[in-house]
Amino acid sequence: VTRETILGPNAELGRLSTPALVLDLDALERNIARMADFSRESGVALRPHAKTHKSVRIARMQVEAGALGVCCATLGEAEVMVDGGVGGVLITSPVVSVAKVARLVELNARAERLMVVADHADNVAELARASAAAGRPLRLLVDIDPGIHRTGVRDTEAAAALARQIEASHSLELCGVQVYAGHLQHVEDFARRSALAQEQHRTLADLVERLMAEGRRPAIVTGAGTGTHAIDAAGPFTELQTGSYVFMDVEYNAVDLRGDGVRAFEPALFVAATVVSANADGFVTVDAGLKAFATDGPKPEPARGAPAGSQYAFMGDEHGALILPPGVRLELGSVVECLTPHCDPTVNLYDRYHVVRGETLEDVWPVDARGAA
Amino acid sequence: VTRETILGPNAELGRLSTPALVLDLDALERNIARMADFSRESGVALRPHAKTHKSVRIARMQVEAGALGVCCATLGEAEVMVDGGVGGVLITSPVVSVAKVARLVELNARAERLMVVADHADNVAELARASAAAGRPLRLLVDIDPGIHRTGVRDTEAAAALARQIEASHSLELCGVQVYAGHLQHVEDFARRSALAQEQHRTLADLVERLMAEGRRPAIVTGAGTGTHAIDAAGPFTELQTGSYVFMDVEYNAVDLRGDGVRAFEPALFVAATVVSANADGFVTVDAGLKAFATDGPKPEPARGAPAGSQYAFMGDEHGALILPPGVRLELGSVVECLTPHCDPTVNLYDRYHVVRGETLEDVWPVDARGAA
Repeated sequence: VTRETILGPNAELGRLSTPALVLDLDALERNIARMADFSRESGVALRPHAKTHKSVRIARMQVEAGALGVCCATLGEAEVMVDGGVGGVLITSPVVSVAKVARLVELNARAERLMVVADHADNVAELARASAAAGRPLRLLVDIDPGIHRTGVRDTEAAAALARQIEASHSLELCGVQVYAGHLQHVEDFARRSALAQEQHRTLADLVERLMAEGRRPAIVTGAGTGTHAIDAAGPFTELQTGSYVFMDVEYNAVDLRGDGVRAFEPALFVAATVVSANADGFVTVDAGLKAFATDGPKPEPARGAPAGSQYAFMGDEHGALILPPGVRLELGSVVECLTPHCDPTVNLYDRYHVVRGETLEDVWPVDARGAA
Repeated sequence: VTRETILGPNAELGRLSTPALVLDLDALERNIARMADFSRESGVALRPHAKTHKSVRIARMQVEAGALGVCCATLGEAEVMVDGGVGGVLITSPVVSVAKVARLVELNARAERLMVVADHADNVAELARASAAAGRPLRLLVDIDPGIHRTGVRDTEAAAALARQIEASHSLELCGVQVYAGHLQHVEDFARRSALAQEQHRTLADLVERLMAEGRRPAIVTGAGTGTHAIDAAGPFTELQTGSYVFMDVEYNAVDLRGDGVRAFEPALFVAATVVSANADGFVTVDAGLKAFATDGPKPEPARGAPAGSQYAFMGDEHGALILPPGVRLELGSVVECLTPHCDPTVNLYDRYHVVRGETLEDVWPVDARGAA
């Protein structure tokens, strides 16, 4: 039984036209509730990352479950969230360039509790000038490089200097620090991931101590992804910015998230594809290829509708092969679902979610911030 | 000098907000003219593939230069092209499933000279039923597998049988055959690519002869990509479905297209990115990562604004590193452009083209069929 047969009470929504993102609402709700519970129980606040789902609707569900707001990776995502009524947005990448700083200042004028990270004196100076001209203070976090060398200041000294610069500006408000250890999120072995994360915690604790010695206790210490959330909650963080837990994907499913072998979160996001060519023994061709799945991670994992033991292989822009176990056939027109390989860039390929509860297509939600830079 | 400084006479279009697709109009026009010239000179018609650009505007430019229409990879692309006033659309993948066959028949009712390929008796039977019910004949091509095993019938026998089935239906019209050798397009050595393509030509010539012997001369024999167009024009093809020549990309730039070492087409498509973090010696971080470039092919190639000898490396969803030659620095806020790694899936990440002529931003065009399935 596959979900493409679900016309039933929602005929007006039509059948799925594949390739299509399928969102399992029961699983999504459970994932959101479980991370909210974890946040409450561990006493560390939650500001989940919206770069994963890019959906105002899902952001609101997270806030209703207790989140402080959401994180955004781009200014464009933040604009969509703010204009969708989501408060407490934190932009987790530096916003640079004249055009974007102008948009940021405009957004700050209409946003509730907007924050943005910075990692460079020139950028802080530009943000100070622009927000002074706009007449509304801008709230900043110092972005600290945890060793990825992507964004962030490189050491405690540079972090303290940037914090001083922010505090010295009347148009800026220092709210805390960010350390996001993206490179540790998918380390498969829990003990090794813990050891590496705890090393970061020591550096971070030193920084917090240094800032406190200067009279600048950071109100917010933010970081942590789905892969390290359970480890980071015991560290110096005041809030977590986990994203992928809402959907899970092939990458995160391979990771023991809490060191207990228990899967705290469950796959909620799938790509539905149709068998469009069936002229061979041993495999069929489906209509989801490298414009339908992220290609930077593992391969999509066949799920509902796919025979047990089948495997997916990319076959170009619009097609993939579903390699079947010996003797198994699949008819032309069959619909199969695959677990998404890397959920964030996969979602970014689609304009909408097909929201299902069991066999029923309940709704279609827009991917509001798709492609928003 | 980079193109982000181009406010000048087009201030109302604003500065580029990166990451952004930049389309060099001069280069695009030359590429379109050169392929049109090649088609005229070789006496083989041209129906370029719109899956590359997904743009009604560019499709119209191709038709104005002499193309018969455009090819589309998905039904959704075909709907966008037809509704944008483009005639002569050929859908190059089988259209399967109740929902899509219904849409196809509706499209056929409002389209001028629509065609679609088929590779399976069940699909042909469904198309016959649906188009009979709609009262307008549907024009079909038999899709033949050139050895990729993606779509297409596997041999001459099966092709002839499908042709008979189509001809036997009053609601279907047999228009010809398609053989698209996607696996040969990027074979770097011209002699080897020629030899492999010519092997396909012999099989295809046998099929054409077989159909003629049965009184079914295929009016259309379509195939050929940018990589084999010069070879295929000398083969049994009546028309070419080249796509990437309009933009070129890192992959096609590595291929000697005509065996003469002359670059017939030139790069016309770039991704502009801004330096958003500059805290290290030896590299900077730009705001274009794996949501800004296709990741299935080679790496993006630094171009305008990037120091000679610099290299791009992916650094996550929203970021990349620009690795600089020794002693070279790049300021925060600098804009660099990269040649797209694989143009089709890169375009599919963006909602619009920033169309430039030299230093001037002339227009912003929508990527009309982005994500259209």
